[in-house]
Amino acid sequence: MPEIAKTPKPPYYAVIFSSHRTDGDNGYAAMAERMVELAAEQLGFLGVESARETLGITVSYWESLEAISNWKKNAEHLEAQRLGHKQWYSSFRVRVAKVERDYGI
Amino acid sequence: MPEIAKTPKPPYYAVIFSSHRTDGDNGYAAMAERMVELAAEQLGFLGVESARETLGITVSYWESLEAISNWKKNAEHLEAQRLGHKQWYSSFRVRVAKVERDYGI
Repeated sequence: MPEIAKTPKPPYYAVIFSSHRTDGDNGYAAMAERMVELAAEQLGFLGVESARETLGITVSYWESLEAISNWKKNAEHLEAQRLGHKQWYSSFRVRVAKVERDYGI
Repeated sequence: MPEIAKTPKPPYYAVIFSSHRTDGDNGYAAMAERMVELAAEQLGFLGVESARETLGITVSYWESLEAISNWKKNAEHLEAQRLGHKQWYSSFRVRVAKVERDYGI
């Protein structure tokens, strides 16, 4: 079962990625899986959560803005971003946010 | 089609709610719909995005921490929180975050 990310005590950072997909796979599923795998190898990665109905939401969690910046510049990820912009997403928004508190059960 | 929230220029706040549901509806769907409607009436509400596969993610956007605090204390919402804790969610995490930048297409 996809888990709720086991993040440390705040503060830490969240990248909220909201998107609408274009029709057809066009290599998307394999690349999405690879990006989760690759993100998990990055320094400062804390976890990721993802769900899609019509709207897709992926939230990745990071130790610092520097970790997010490094991930954004990763060569394989740059290629995924290029293809995402060009063909996989009809619209998307990325929001970079500082998590100030959290709680739950 | 569920839209990506049309939020203003940062800074603003995001409440990221990640959850696993228990089995059965038990009044959940109606209450979830009502909470979106009620949240939208609150001062400082900016928008909401939601998706669920096994994991559910709802992100609501707010002008300020005060708006979030007022929403958390809303009487109808308190009752929804009580039922959520008691029967609708097997686990959840709420993260309150300050959106520092955003971009998209």
